[in-house]
Amino acid sequence: MTATSNFADRLFAAVDAKQSVVVAGLDPHLDRLPGPPTAETVVDFFGRLIACVAPHVVAVKPQAAFFEALGVAGWRAYAELVSRARAEGLLVIGDVKRGDIGSTSAAYARAHLGPGPLRSDAVTVNPYLGSDGVRPFVDSAREAGGGLFVLVKTSNPSSSEIQDRLVDQAPLYEQVGRLVVGWGRELVGACGYSAVGAVVGATHPDVAARMRAVLAGVPVLLPGYGAQGATAEDLRGWFDARGHGGVVPASRSLAFCWEDPDDWEGAVEAAAVEMKRALNAVR
Amino acid sequence: MTATSNFADRLFAAVDAKQSVVVAGLDPHLDRLPGPPTAETVVDFFGRLIACVAPHVVAVKPQAAFFEALGVAGWRAYAELVSRARAEGLLVIGDVKRGDIGSTSAAYARAHLGPGPLRSDAVTVNPYLGSDGVRPFVDSAREAGGGLFVLVKTSNPSSSEIQDRLVDQAPLYEQVGRLVVGWGRELVGACGYSAVGAVVGATHPDVAARMRAVLAGVPVLLPGYGAQGATAEDLRGWFDARGHGGVVPASRSLAFCWEDPDDWEGAVEAAAVEMKRALNAVR
Repeated sequence: MTATSNFADRLFAAVDAKQSVVVAGLDPHLDRLPGPPTAETVVDFFGRLIACVAPHVVAVKPQAAFFEALGVAGWRAYAELVSRARAEGLLVIGDVKRGDIGSTSAAYARAHLGPGPLRSDAVTVNPYLGSDGVRPFVDSAREAGGGLFVLVKTSNPSSSEIQDRLVDQAPLYEQVGRLVVGWGRELVGACGYSAVGAVVGATHPDVAARMRAVLAGVPVLLPGYGAQGATAEDLRGWFDARGHGGVVPASRSLAFCWEDPDDWEGAVEAAAVEMKRALNAVR
Repeated sequence: MTATSNFADRLFAAVDAKQSVVVAGLDPHLDRLPGPPTAETVVDFFGRLIACVAPHVVAVKPQAAFFEALGVAGWRAYAELVSRARAEGLLVIGDVKRGDIGSTSAAYARAHLGPGPLRSDAVTVNPYLGSDGVRPFVDSAREAGGGLFVLVKTSNPSSSEIQDRLVDQAPLYEQVGRLVVGWGRELVGACGYSAVGAVVGATHPDVAARMRAVLAGVPVLLPGYGAQGATAEDLRGWFDARGHGGVVPASRSLAFCWEDPDDWEGAVEAAAVEMKRALNAVR
């Protein structure tokens, strides 16, 4: 499938081929790396991690914040790891949570979905600024065969403070979900899902049934598995009869599941295989 | 005043010293630069711009998106311009609009308020994830004498889609404003303002009177002047008896006000002087 195919088609083709909905989060917590806390260690560790999980995951999800905390060298490491993930045939979901006014969002969309070293297949986007902050990402996604995942209901405890406030008798996140459906209407792939996805925390199993219906045709990125406490069982409602509909990232519970810093690759691969198995049992 | 003084005290001391509330936005629209669209041109043009507006502005506000669009070289240019602004004695407001779950926001806070080449005096923050996404920035601000400006009501047309939705009979942006007041309560400076500020678009003069009251003790960053259509008159309500309370960025209307690419510095300086004068007339 070419890079300009619809992102949702590419995502679920990878799910079928790998028989996996696992996404490996790349979150370089510097104090947990098996080596000095430098950009070089980040590239070495996560480069090896990518190679050992590649058969079992559909995508990697680098978390921009941890790279940005390393300054210019961190962004160079980000670009290098994006390149290594592509070389392994993996999709890249840039977890950047960007969003700004129109012309500025267009610059972020160019940075992350346009040609260039930071290019991802999809990015996470913050919806607080409304349509004109999101549309530049949709436009770039159309041109590049890319995708986006818009924050709808995040996995963190205080997500309720703003996202759960009632607007016209429904939580704000549901209203944002309806906007997401609209933004993706022109980018529906052959698989029936749109290239405009949503982020819904796996830590809120109570919202799954309702939000799966609201987010008809919207692929969902479901963070919160593992270190944040969500289990495979919490995700049962998100998948359709073909096992499509969502993908599940895990960061700390994959990358830092080992005890021996000199012999971690087997532990990481085993954790990816186990997560794949657990999720396949509920889809 | 030392770098660990309260950010609001440092900001309004600069306002008093310069008799200006102008902030120079650094938005490298590549197609408008007087030179090839490279990171080198960005550093050269904005480095000269910083030198010529320095006597008339209190801060610069680099817009991260346009730098990020240039990849690793863009972030190097960002760091270089931050350094040049400091050398001119200017405050730096990193317009990054970051925000994520707790441990990830902490990495962004470290990147932009901690020691390091991207360090700003204050950053813009997106509130959609709630308190645990914002508090790491507050904590870093306390440690470093830094500040933040939380998006409350943005300047763009579709800001109404989410921010104006009614929650308990008031627009969501007002509820977010109340959260901002709470987040800043521990960081009130001698000037009576907190180091936790708000972003309210100058393009909404109708909200100024109400929101100035809601945002008691909160310094406000007021984008939208100039290219986005707001005038000095629209900002009259935001300042207290000492002329404190808010600062006003302008990007395109300062940086790209000239016609002759070989002789633009005089035009940019004149635009900064005129903006300073127009805003001093309403505060």
